[in-house]
Amino acid sequence: MTGLVDRRLADLGLVLPEAVPPVANYVPFVTSRGMVFVSGQLPLVDGRPAFVGKLGDGVSLADGQAAARLCAINAIAQLRAACDGDLDRVRRIVRLGGFVACVAAFTDHPKVINGASDLMVEVFGDAGRHARAAVGCPSLPLDAPVEMDLIAELDG
Amino acid sequence: MTGLVDRRLADLGLVLPEAVPPVANYVPFVTSRGMVFVSGQLPLVDGRPAFVGKLGDGVSLADGQAAARLCAINAIAQLRAACDGDLDRVRRIVRLGGFVACVAAFTDHPKVINGASDLMVEVFGDAGRHARAAVGCPSLPLDAPVEMDLIAELDG
Amino acid sequence: MTGLVDRRLADLGLVLPEAVPPVANYVPFVTSRGMVFVSGQLPLVDGRPAFVGKLGDGVSLADGQAAARLCAINAIAQLRAACDGDLDRVRRIVRLGGFVACVAAFTDHPKVINGASDLMVEVFGDAGRHARAAVGCPSLPLDAPVEMDLIAELDG
Repeated sequence: MTGLVDRRLADLGLVLPEAVPPVANYVPFVTSRGMVFVSGQLPLVDGRPAFVGKLGDGVSLADGQAAARLCAINAIAQLRAACDGDLDRVRRIVRLGGFVACVAAFTDHPKVINGASDLMVEVFGDAGRHARAAVGCPSLPLDAPVEMDLIAELDG
Repeated sequence: MTGLVDRRLADLGLVLPEAVPPVANYVPFVTSRGMVFVSGQLPLVDGRPAFVGKLGDGVSLADGQAAARLCAINAIAQLRAACDGDLDRVRRIVRLGGFVACVAAFTDHPKVINGASDLMVEVFGDAGRHARAAVGCPSLPLDAPVEMDLIAELDG
Repeated sequence: MTGLVDRRLADLGLVLPEAVPPVANYVPFVTSRGMVFVSGQLPLVDGRPAFVGKLGDGVSLADGQAAARLCAINAIAQLRAACDGDLDRVRRIVRLGGFVACVAAFTDHPKVINGASDLMVEVFGDAGRHARAAVGCPSLPLDAPVEMDLIAELDG
């Protein structure tokens, strides 16, 4: 027996990683009053950044979008842990915060963060449609090009 | 019959625009457990940025404040949509996130974001008094000088 | 009679300042549906920045961490006001937003914000373990090297 969201992940050919431990002294998510607050996720694969650098200075739009998608995959892995493994308990992806490491001349932050937003809708359907802010940063932890945090509502 | 907040808007000579559609694949607001999360708003008029550039590099403090005020007007338009047209259902503007595109030497982010904060209090009175964070960014979507997101509590 | 958290503060030799008034037209915290949203806090002592400048350009990692700790102390002072003086009413530090003023080459944002995260756990114990995002900014209000906002859940 697998849930609806698990089947969508399988249809997309996505295997969620183990939830990535935080890179410092905090926890990867907190559940409070039916809401899950997921810590800022980086485009890590097996604990290492799969992308480094900045948009507008060496990182292409396509790579930025792939990095954002990786952040989203890691965030969904955290959500799965927050739901004790049952992603069908996610009632709504409420808000996504997208941070793009970029130069001052870069203006396509929304296109970068679409790499994360699109995945949320692919995986959760209408429940994946979220509010969002996308902004630029001079740099991000581990020289990542993208960081993403998330608020979701759980069932019950 | 118009509501109290609608009368305040009229007294201020403010006509809310239609809620601005998002510039990418997400929704302009999500309501969850009595809270509205409004996506990052830009200083758009009729779908185009009314201001572009950065504080400390061509955009004056007065223009930054006007841009922040426009972001706030667009956020209130989203709130109106979230309330099915009845802004009196806004119990409290809870938190405003203000992002200012600026050079490294700029330090007056609070004064810029006051353009948004002042409007919230003018429109909602005491219910418009909010928590806030104001920070700098190297750049923002569409080269906007200001972006603002918002969390509000609804009645009921 | 003092509370558990007050005793921890005393054990740490920490005297909370009076809650710092905001530097602009907003309020230092809003309580909504059992959650406290604390405005962005700066490393102020007696109303003046104890640190100024940027990480990677004159501010050391140790000073950045001390600045983050000061932001956290000021945030706890705001929380105390939100709890009418009884910090034992804080059920959980839910989320901490850490903004680091830095140059583009800086990548140790997590280590800086640990100055705040570590204090939260020292003061609140397990209830102080929070979700978190740490990002870079080209500049922050008053030329502060760190700004921190916070969401907490209250009892009841």
